[in-house]
Amino acid sequence: MTVQLKVKGFRFAAVPAGIKKPGKLDLGLILSDLPAISAGLFTTNKVVAAPVTLSSPRVRSGLCRAILVNSGNANACTGQDGMKDALYCGDLVAKALNLTPEMVAVSSTGVIGLRLDVSKFDAAVPALIEALSEDAAPVSEAMMTTDSFAKVSAAYGSVHEKEYTVLGLAKGAGMIHPDMATMLAFVMTDVAISKEFADWALRRAVAKSFNRITVDRDTSTNDMVLLLANGASGIAEIKEESPEAEEFCRLLDEILLDLAKMIVSDGEGATKLVRIVVCGARNEEDAMIAARSVATSSLVKTALFGEDANWGRIIAAVGYSGADVNPETVDILIGDVKLVKEGLGTGKDTEAKATVIMRQPEFTITIDLHLGNAEYDYYTSDLTYDYIKINADYRS
Amino acid sequence: MTVQLKVKGFRFAAVPAGIKKPGKLDLGLILSDLPAISAGLFTTNKVVAAPVTLSSPRVRSGLCRAILVNSGNANACTGQDGMKDALYCGDLVAKALNLTPEMVAVSSTGVIGLRLDVSKFDAAVPALIEALSEDAAPVSEAMMTTDSFAKVSAAYGSVHEKEYTVLGLAKGAGMIHPDMATMLAFVMTDVAISKEFADWALRRAVAKSFNRITVDRDTSTNDMVLLLANGASGIAEIKEESPEAEEFCRLLDEILLDLAKMIVSDGEGATKLVRIVVCGARNEEDAMIAARSVATSSLVKTALFGEDANWGRIIAAVGYSGADVNPETVDILIGDVKLVKEGLGTGKDTEAKATVIMRQPEFTITIDLHLGNAEYDYYTSDLTYDYIKINADYRS
Repeated sequence: MTVQLKVKGFRFAAVPAGIKKPGKLDLGLILSDLPAISAGLFTTNKVVAAPVTLSSPRVRSGLCRAILVNSGNANACTGQDGMKDALYCGDLVAKALNLTPEMVAVSSTGVIGLRLDVSKFDAAVPALIEALSEDAAPVSEAMMTTDSFAKVSAAYGSVHEKEYTVLGLAKGAGMIHPDMATMLAFVMTDVAISKEFADWALRRAVAKSFNRITVDRDTSTNDMVLLLANGASGIAEIKEESPEAEEFCRLLDEILLDLAKMIVSDGEGATKLVRIVVCGARNEEDAMIAARSVATSSLVKTALFGEDANWGRIIAAVGYSGADVNPETVDILIGDVKLVKEGLGTGKDTEAKATVIMRQPEFTITIDLHLGNAEYDYYTSDLTYDYIKINADYRS
Repeated sequence: MTVQLKVKGFRFAAVPAGIKKPGKLDLGLILSDLPAISAGLFTTNKVVAAPVTLSSPRVRSGLCRAILVNSGNANACTGQDGMKDALYCGDLVAKALNLTPEMVAVSSTGVIGLRLDVSKFDAAVPALIEALSEDAAPVSEAMMTTDSFAKVSAAYGSVHEKEYTVLGLAKGAGMIHPDMATMLAFVMTDVAISKEFADWALRRAVAKSFNRITVDRDTSTNDMVLLLANGASGIAEIKEESPEAEEFCRLLDEILLDLAKMIVSDGEGATKLVRIVVCGARNEEDAMIAARSVATSSLVKTALFGEDANWGRIIAAVGYSGADVNPETVDILIGDVKLVKEGLGTGKDTEAKATVIMRQPEFTITIDLHLGNAEYDYYTSDLTYDYIKINADYRS
């Protein structure tokens, strides 16, 4: 299916501004023609890039309706000068579009520690505004740094036979170049929702998607997830706790999980997308830390690459996670093959069967602790030669 | 300097018992001919191998004077049968030496999930006791699994011109084979110390050595560090808080740090031994989590391998560590080259100088947070192609 890359009341544009190599799309603009509700979540890294510092209060105020995004330079670790540059670029867009500066979010991804050349924005912003159209595809391309494919996902809902769209664009994963700052996601929808509902729904969807993926445990200085909702579908405001709200949340969750999985499968050197499920935990916190421990273990991740049904590494990672666990009640399944029952291996035959499943590009590992009813899942990639190559050999 | 591998009042032996390939030393015995004080620290993994479960209370009781150690099989994830096997092997040694079972610690390293073949111990234990001699070297060899060299360290002190010895044997690091359980260290000394002092001194020395190293963040099911002190030097008991105690602790710290560094430099695929120092932190906890975050970051570790003075990855790892940090006061040095001053890069010239330092097999990275006076250090290795090869390709 070809995803239709447009949402009512939004226009998009991208141009080559010369921040990356000449001729490459590297500057994008997303604009809601109507006033929009904005919500956002930002990196928890204490080393925060200037565009995050600038945009976070603007987005949280709820009134943002434009997003200026550049790749090629993260404007991170650039001090007070970097803040001035981010402000300047946002102002360029605000003036040209007759918006207040607070209505423009600025977002950057790329190399850390280098100042932006704002003269390139002077030249490119008029062309960018000139290029505005209904098609979001160019923006998804302009966000890419070393992503191997543009990441877009769309879902469609309806209320009383009026259709609406939820469209997501993302880039990631990993700080692929020696000093890249990365993960960005923008979600546009033409439903009308309150600021409070937008905040709640975005936080909930991120908790079930972007907060459950890992490539290398490193959190960038530039991460942000933004949601703009402009009501252009003409559907009456969707109220919290209604059946329509439930449907909207389901679509939003779907889009974000879809983008999150794309980020992992496009992870540095990754050849596998593996879902780690911990169930039967005493509580969700335990399930989460056990799943995260397995998903981030270098020994597990190299075994995924080696297609090695190595349950010793999996149970060891559960054991040191800090979660409450009784080794004598742990079952481990790869796909539907029970490799470990009550803490003991089930033999060479099941290992052979599990190995067959591990040859697939996507599969699930389930760890049942048999201590309660809580469950949590995580998506991870394998750790490969190419991960080392990408991250160690870049300058050589 | 050739390390003299003996300690008064201790005897050592190793034999090939057929647990590893035929003819390889794989079973070792350490015996204090006199009653000894024992102290120990054990893995915090909740999946605990049988020998750890058996030996932990025995060592903690303070009366252990013999250690039976095998390589080739970790006796981990082997359930109740594994406990019976560990008990049986300990009893073999206790009976043959006329000790109570509680005086014998049992320690295993090797493959997870396979039962020990105790009949091999029936045959080998008499030969082992026959082979007892003053030379500790064979035991250090019998402990090895895929270590590339035997790890021994000795230090010498004196009280009123009477000499004493602190001798350490270790093996590690990493669970190199697909399902290996690893880190073991045994320290023998001929001073007389109280059980309380032994516990305190060992815990303190481990906190400054084995607890500050990382190869891959994975904690094994079999880790243990044991200290036996038998007073055979004839020196009067060293009392806590005396100058002699201070000297003894200094030697113990030195031995354990020496062994810990050997483990990192023999880490899976490692080509570098790098000390990460975080100073100027508000408190030691902050310094610790920041140092650990940098030391365990896959992006930092691949940059170490690539000899890439990539401060963006270092400051990002400090930023997401959870430690209190103000990016605008952070300095980063590689060796004595200041690469970052107050959060900003100092330029291409200093990067070039730092790169020269990174070509050395050992160097220090210092991160000064300029927020307080607390400091912590960590030792780490680089993340290399060989790490992937060792961990992914073993079975292929």
